[in-house]
Amino acid sequence: MPDYAIGVDLGGTNLKAATVSADGNMLDRLNAQTDITQGPERIINDIVASIEALRDRAGSGQRLTGVGIGVPGFIRLAEGYVVGSHNLPPLNEYPVRDAIEQRLGTPVILENDANAAALGEKWIGAGRDVDDLVLLTLGTGIGGGIISHGRVLHGAVGMAGELGHLTVVPNGNPCGCGNVGCLEKHASATAVESMANLLALGDNLTSKDVYDLAVAGDERARRIFASMGEALGIAIAMLINVFNYPLYLMSGGALAAWEFFYPALEAEVRKRSFTYRNTETRIDKAILGNEAGLFGAAYLPFQAQRSTHE
Amino acid sequence: MPDYAIGVDLGGTNLKAATVSADGNMLDRLNAQTDITQGPERIINDIVASIEALRDRAGSGQRLTGVGIGVPGFIRLAEGYVVGSHNLPPLNEYPVRDAIEQRLGTPVILENDANAAALGEKWIGAGRDVDDLVLLTLGTGIGGGIISHGRVLHGAVGMAGELGHLTVVPNGNPCGCGNVGCLEKHASATAVESMANLLALGDNLTSKDVYDLAVAGDERARRIFASMGEALGIAIAMLINVFNYPLYLMSGGALAAWEFFYPALEAEVRKRSFTYRNTETRIDKAILGNEAGLFGAAYLPFQAQRSTHE
Repeated sequence: MPDYAIGVDLGGTNLKAATVSADGNMLDRLNAQTDITQGPERIINDIVASIEALRDRAGSGQRLTGVGIGVPGFIRLAEGYVVGSHNLPPLNEYPVRDAIEQRLGTPVILENDANAAALGEKWIGAGRDVDDLVLLTLGTGIGGGIISHGRVLHGAVGMAGELGHLTVVPNGNPCGCGNVGCLEKHASATAVESMANLLALGDNLTSKDVYDLAVAGDERARRIFASMGEALGIAIAMLINVFNYPLYLMSGGALAAWEFFYPALEAEVRKRSFTYRNTETRIDKAILGNEAGLFGAAYLPFQAQRSTHE
Repeated sequence: MPDYAIGVDLGGTNLKAATVSADGNMLDRLNAQTDITQGPERIINDIVASIEALRDRAGSGQRLTGVGIGVPGFIRLAEGYVVGSHNLPPLNEYPVRDAIEQRLGTPVILENDANAAALGEKWIGAGRDVDDLVLLTLGTGIGGGIISHGRVLHGAVGMAGELGHLTVVPNGNPCGCGNVGCLEKHASATAVESMANLLALGDNLTSKDVYDLAVAGDERARRIFASMGEALGIAIAMLINVFNYPLYLMSGGALAAWEFFYPALEAEVRKRSFTYRNTETRIDKAILGNEAGLFGAAYLPFQAQRSTHE
């Protein structure tokens, strides 16, 4: 009987779920909404309903290995809950994992969404040929996932890989985390928009608008992406100096602007990392797009099962 | 027959070697000089002579498990040689490991000196109760060692943990590595001396002189250590955000000035790391002093033997 897993990618407004085979084929999927205004039980209901729908559709001819769920926020692995998630405030310190496990009668593994995406890229994406990689997810914020010996690096309680909060400008822009100069305040889509505002490039420009201006040849728009690239380069150079891993990936809508931010990024890395200049180190685009987190979440129960059989 | 290992700590002028039992007791030791002006063979001879002397003194009633050697510089593990060592230029790209193995007929493991010190602290030092830690060695430069699941984190070729070259001031002091604003240019003993010079505190003051002034109440000297602490705090906050490990250690002569740099360090970490503020994270002094590297080097062959038996 073939094994399958269900991966869930839970966002602030969308809930994606997929049925994935043990060899990484997506067999089924569905998209739903998350209503975060009605308290945690409602979100748990939405998640459970999606998983049950996929399980029913998979039928009894396959065996469900387990469920993996990627969520934005810091994960406390032992307790199975989320802390400090700006996107899903009702779930803060709510026993998400246990509540869903009880409802489903199936093992559930909770993971930070960026960690899940990094694991997905390692499993069947841009990192499938390496055991160690770092992923930066570039969105309205910046997340990080670190894969070490093929597994998510968790640290003591599951909070490792908070790479959007690396300090890249010691006296830089203030961040909601309490720090100033965090990477995500200098290189996210929000940071691009903020720089466009500072340069009075236009009213309420989106990062896509700034990108279009850069494509049209606007030097200030290009300077914004160069600034974003410098911030990313400082962070990636440090990650290379820390890890000496072979692969550093980026994902997210910002990849469209690669040609505008990558040259500045690479120049910073080249300057700031002896290791980069002297070893084979690849900095590249992730390839699974929005589905990396779904695949990574689905891979979690397969990986957990495999390690108990080792 | 009891097992023992020999650990070697090779510096630019000194060569220390010790006989260590499998339970971490130092049974014998010797100190010698390294003459780096006569080419690599002379250094290899000095190392081999020290190891042979200790082996002879251990006698035939014990079994030599192997030899571990900590050296300053980037290690290429697979090739068994050192690159980019400012202290031991004759050994650059010389097959150190193989040359010594051939002479001794005993397995030899080469390791970066700061990695060896981190491993020593993990084995029998300040980190013996944890599996994961980071060590910063504060000296004329700053080295780093990362222990992950009880082992040195090496990365792809053995260059992980170059923490002295983390960028803490993006447009800061130039570094020999090609970067500007490296941690070791803002927080090493050399950086303390450089700041004393910039403040015209006195002629050719050593970091010890600056420390004595701080003890005597000199506000500028205290400001120098606060600046050093801020640079260390920026770096340690980032390491906490990356790893979420339970323990961050510092070693070296600078620990004497702990009272002058630690408050600024802790304030930066508190500001820059949500994880630090929300998890049990210890920042502390290493306890093995100059012997951490010797112990860690000696532990390498024991650890290698144990993993082949696992």
